[in-house]
Amino acid sequence: MNTLRINLPYVIFLGDIQDSMLAKTGLGLVKWSKDQVVGQLRLPGCKVDLGVADLTLQSAVAQGAKSLVLGVATVGGSISDAWLPVLVQALENGLDIVNGLHTDLNKIPALAAAKAKGGSQIVNVRGAHQALPVGTGRKRQGMRILTVGTDCAVGKKYTALAMAQCLKANGIAATFRATGQTGIMIAGEGLAVDSVISDFVSGAAELISPDNDSGHWDVVEGQGSLFNPSFSAVSMGLLHGSQPDALILCHDAARLKVSTCPTYAIPTLQECMDLHLRCAKIVNPSARFIGVSINTSSLPAAERKAYLDQLQQELGLPCVDPLVEGCQLFVEQLQQQKTAGM
Amino acid sequence: MNTLRINLPYVIFLGDIQDSMLAKTGLGLVKWSKDQVVGQLRLPGCKVDLGVADLTLQSAVAQGAKSLVLGVATVGGSISDAWLPVLVQALENGLDIVNGLHTDLNKIPALAAAKAKGGSQIVNVRGAHQALPVGTGRKRQGMRILTVGTDCAVGKKYTALAMAQCLKANGIAATFRATGQTGIMIAGEGLAVDSVISDFVSGAAELISPDNDSGHWDVVEGQGSLFNPSFSAVSMGLLHGSQPDALILCHDAARLKVSTCPTYAIPTLQECMDLHLRCAKIVNPSARFIGVSINTSSLPAAERKAYLDQLQQELGLPCVDPLVEGCQLFVEQLQQQKTAGM
Repeated sequence: MNTLRINLPYVIFLGDIQDSMLAKTGLGLVKWSKDQVVGQLRLPGCKVDLGVADLTLQSAVAQGAKSLVLGVATVGGSISDAWLPVLVQALENGLDIVNGLHTDLNKIPALAAAKAKGGSQIVNVRGAHQALPVGTGRKRQGMRILTVGTDCAVGKKYTALAMAQCLKANGIAATFRATGQTGIMIAGEGLAVDSVISDFVSGAAELISPDNDSGHWDVVEGQGSLFNPSFSAVSMGLLHGSQPDALILCHDAARLKVSTCPTYAIPTLQECMDLHLRCAKIVNPSARFIGVSINTSSLPAAERKAYLDQLQQELGLPCVDPLVEGCQLFVEQLQQQKTAGM
Repeated sequence: MNTLRINLPYVIFLGDIQDSMLAKTGLGLVKWSKDQVVGQLRLPGCKVDLGVADLTLQSAVAQGAKSLVLGVATVGGSISDAWLPVLVQALENGLDIVNGLHTDLNKIPALAAAKAKGGSQIVNVRGAHQALPVGTGRKRQGMRILTVGTDCAVGKKYTALAMAQCLKANGIAATFRATGQTGIMIAGEGLAVDSVISDFVSGAAELISPDNDSGHWDVVEGQGSLFNPSFSAVSMGLLHGSQPDALILCHDAARLKVSTCPTYAIPTLQECMDLHLRCAKIVNPSARFIGVSINTSSLPAAERKAYLDQLQQELGLPCVDPLVEGCQLFVEQLQQQKTAGM
């Protein structure tokens, strides 16, 4: 029983897209795992540039690429006929295709045939996972950080990636643990917990973050929110399966209503921390928050500092926008608490 | 988009089993939906008797049976070869087979062929459900009771069934809403929420308990527990999707450890109520507990009353074993709270 694993490194396929908004996955890969990206493959007319080497399929293979990533979001999640010849050629040449779209590429006959011919795979990152274990609640060795949030899409993935990077920069052993499709592509492995049968969510989270060295930190990408009625099941299973020692609360300063349930107000940060902590302590009595990560992109530059300072005073924890200040204060908080014996 | 629906009435198939422990589903059907049971179908040598009419396949069809229920649990969830001829005959004669086992009967070629010939269906009660909606959190008309628990298997289904029956006996409109396989067989419809992809658990719960008359009570069968790390995701999604106005806490007086996680202590009843209420109030600010349902079968008869009296004093709510005292005190509590404007 394993998490999903991707053969690295990647060549990022951009097709003939015109708008960089559609290339979010590709941009994320270049930002967070550039050493796993050999280059980009663009069709004539493509207007997006990820700032990495332009390759042909042949040159990508020559440079060691093992997978071609569909680094493109498309309307409706389907793929263009104009892309098929390159995708067929990739599979026939032994490159896996890593697919984050909703379309199951195995159902396209030309691709299924090409895969058989090349002995390659189509890795469906959104695919539901079979034969997962039920969560056991067993305490695992090593330590874990989980990013949780006041809602969906408030920076939980970004914060987890930045925190893992910052821990490593401080000489602390750490691994980013992916629980969603983009995160999985960046990490090269993981499980999309929102695609798992509900009985197995905490079991999936236990698999994602297995026993490790006692000084090692897994930084687990959070999903949803206990306060978002659409996705709270996923959040709860992930919280109980990851058994976090430390939590980081993520919030978007502009968010007033729950994204998928607009009649629901976003909770206060304090009540959000209280409930997550109450639930986390069921599986890990020493769980505690080490900081608050705020997306401040909506705030006027002149108001950012006052906003964060006031929050920090209210909550008694470092409050930063990781995109601006990085995660160093979270790492220091972690180390101070450790020194204080927490 | 619909919940799973079963064609009624049933004939209950018991095969050639020797032990009534294996006939729990059949016993549940006879207890809770006897008017939907035309009789039992037993093979030679069967030592279990549900106390209903013995029928042949022909007489079951003649009496209007629309479905044959596999009312038997088997080790490993598979079926015996000795049962196949009857099952083939049932499908060929247009009876649906309602299957609560893990085995997908569609994969047995003889049954697939018989189904095609008879124009009948194999209803897989444990089957994963496709194309469910994401939960919206929208407030629905009508009222809802949810049974929650300190753990799995502490009487949530039994209590919900008994409560729905008791409400009706008091002249109050009520419907039992099934969320697990046995419950679905009893109700003839429902969704097995633990088989749903985690992103859709609350959406499934919303489907199960749709808008209704303003004075009507849905009594929703709970699953798992927020305190059981194996299944808390299911419990949370069900809690948020069912938006309960009223909750009944279920507990087994003998249970000290969480069934699937034996290093975890069962929470106190008060802390269990506190956390469920905190989470319920996210979707329904007027949610409240109306009683505590205790499985007292492990207690010496002489200690039962003192145990329940003390609990009732501690918690300030009716505490009963529905198997002994019924649910009348819960109904009265509901009506008192209503009079008090709660």
